[in-house]
Amino acid sequence: MVSAQDNSVSAIEWRDDALWLLDQRQLPLEEVWLEHQEVGAVVQSIRDMVVRGAPAIGITAAYGVVIAARGRRDQDAYTWKANLEQDIQDLAQSRPTAVNLFWALDQMRAALAKLSDDEDPIVQLLREAKKIHRLDVAANHAMGRLGSAVMAGVSSPAKGVITHCNTGSLATGGYGTALGVIRSAWQQGLIDRVFADETRPWWQGARLTAWELAKDKIPVTLMADTVGATLMKQGRISWVIVGADRITANGDVANKIGTYNLAVLAKHHGVRFMVVAPTSTFDMDLSSGEDIPIEQRGPDEVVSVKGHRLAPENIEVYNPVFDVTPAELIDAIVTEKGVVERPNLAGVSSLMKKHSLH
Amino acid sequence: MVSAQDNSVSAIEWRDDALWLLDQRQLPLEEVWLEHQEVGAVVQSIRDMVVRGAPAIGITAAYGVVIAARGRRDQDAYTWKANLEQDIQDLAQSRPTAVNLFWALDQMRAALAKLSDDEDPIVQLLREAKKIHRLDVAANHAMGRLGSAVMAGVSSPAKGVITHCNTGSLATGGYGTALGVIRSAWQQGLIDRVFADETRPWWQGARLTAWELAKDKIPVTLMADTVGATLMKQGRISWVIVGADRITANGDVANKIGTYNLAVLAKHHGVRFMVVAPTSTFDMDLSSGEDIPIEQRGPDEVVSVKGHRLAPENIEVYNPVFDVTPAELIDAIVTEKGVVERPNLAGVSSLMKKHSLH
Repeated sequence: MVSAQDNSVSAIEWRDDALWLLDQRQLPLEEVWLEHQEVGAVVQSIRDMVVRGAPAIGITAAYGVVIAARGRRDQDAYTWKANLEQDIQDLAQSRPTAVNLFWALDQMRAALAKLSDDEDPIVQLLREAKKIHRLDVAANHAMGRLGSAVMAGVSSPAKGVITHCNTGSLATGGYGTALGVIRSAWQQGLIDRVFADETRPWWQGARLTAWELAKDKIPVTLMADTVGATLMKQGRISWVIVGADRITANGDVANKIGTYNLAVLAKHHGVRFMVVAPTSTFDMDLSSGEDIPIEQRGPDEVVSVKGHRLAPENIEVYNPVFDVTPAELIDAIVTEKGVVERPNLAGVSSLMKKHSLH
Repeated sequence: MVSAQDNSVSAIEWRDDALWLLDQRQLPLEEVWLEHQEVGAVVQSIRDMVVRGAPAIGITAAYGVVIAARGRRDQDAYTWKANLEQDIQDLAQSRPTAVNLFWALDQMRAALAKLSDDEDPIVQLLREAKKIHRLDVAANHAMGRLGSAVMAGVSSPAKGVITHCNTGSLATGGYGTALGVIRSAWQQGLIDRVFADETRPWWQGARLTAWELAKDKIPVTLMADTVGATLMKQGRISWVIVGADRITANGDVANKIGTYNLAVLAKHHGVRFMVVAPTSTFDMDLSSGEDIPIEQRGPDEVVSVKGHRLAPENIEVYNPVFDVTPAELIDAIVTEKGVVERPNLAGVSSLMKKHSLH
């Protein structure tokens, strides 16, 4: 059951026959909604990070297929399905690392293959996209319950948690993955403060997580990305809780650059490390994290902030925006189907065979 | 022997009877020199980080005493020495963590106590300040030789190093501590690239280290603070080389926030960790790093960049600007008097009894 109290923020909405996205580049200073009526605009918005976060990208792409189908059908009512595949491929190429994108597009392709002649195909595709969106929110609530139960089962004198990047309502269909577990744990009194690191170079922690948690009145402290080590040494942290962009068959996790850093710190300090992601994040075709393509973005977001130059001109920059955390540094992967503790191939394979809880 | 080639940058100069500081807040966009004729302006420049870096702060404070003495003597030629102590205390309170500041002021107090009647006391004090400055540069060159010799003695397939914050000519009297070792190792072909992390929240890496190394044509790659873990996992890093703001009797090191993070990562990946600092950085009155006062700065530098707000209003911020790296994570502390490998109380005590090499 989803109440407004659980989830005061949303970032993806279908209204007036269009896809509306809350422009996350403008947060927290302005809340600007952008309307999308063309699939090209949806591709651009994913690429430019109007919307970001692996599950949110998948949901956006699903609605993108609806918009693309409408456009292709208006052009040619006979060949539209064949032409639509080009748009689906454009959507697939908008971001490389998050596998939820490809998963959502495959769901839409399957729906496309099974369209009934009894009803407007666009209505049927929209129903499928809305289902992907609704099930994502339900999955997040399931993960919130499961992840907080894992936390409740481990006693710790510390009641602070560190989270990285943004995995909340803004990154998903609503409620959030890692931030969903944090919301749930907060409601149960299992944590007393969230330490959000700023998450360079795109500031998801400073701009998005701090904003989302403050909106929900969950105590949050913002800090530079290098401060987590000191907090752990001070004994103030029980768990590091993060999301994932792709998880391989052995339980390795690709996530926002800095995740692996936190996992090494957690291991050194005896702090527990939890990854929270829906099963659509798993890529069982890849045997380990070394096979995951890691997106490198340009130097601009490192050398300047909002047009203000920080570094000297012509400096070389290394800007991988994801890293890979090996399974052996992870205490638990929480999905909507269940929890894998100390993940490995056997545990992940067993999880993926389960039926969904919802 | 110091050649211009070794050291293309300087940040502290005494000319035309005044102290000139290169305003490090404006770098790398503009090279602005500020003239100081009053001790109050010197205190303000240290506090506002016109000048930063532990050795540079000490040298600046020494010149500050000269300026203060001149002012007090102009006011009253009889009581000036007694009145001067207030100015020295103001200088001592400008920044709390770097112990070189207190060391330099003690050197100036000692010079003050031994003034000869045969010569203008201001000339004598200026001579002492210039000596502190000159010996700092000589110490940096000695550390460059010693530190690069340590590197030459350890074979590693990787020839990349990570450095944090700025420890170069800008942070010292010239040449640098950690960056002095890096300059020396580069000249000897021991390293092929320096990875400078940006060093939030004050961007010393992005603004200062990248600028200094580029000026000296040493290959440098800039990256976010969280990327070092990935580079180490890729096997591209042989050493992490950093400076220090204070070192306690047992070999614990206070340095820029993020240093401890890198030390934990280095230990996990089998990468070596070197601290480079003159013996004036040691505080033998403190038995361990837990006793070091850690400066907390305000939230502004975390929540905004050059006046551009990033985080939501009224967000709580934790902004400790130094952290403490325990001795057991350090492979070598390099000083102008010699190297302490695997530092502990016995090793540090033995080092501090040595005579200076220069």
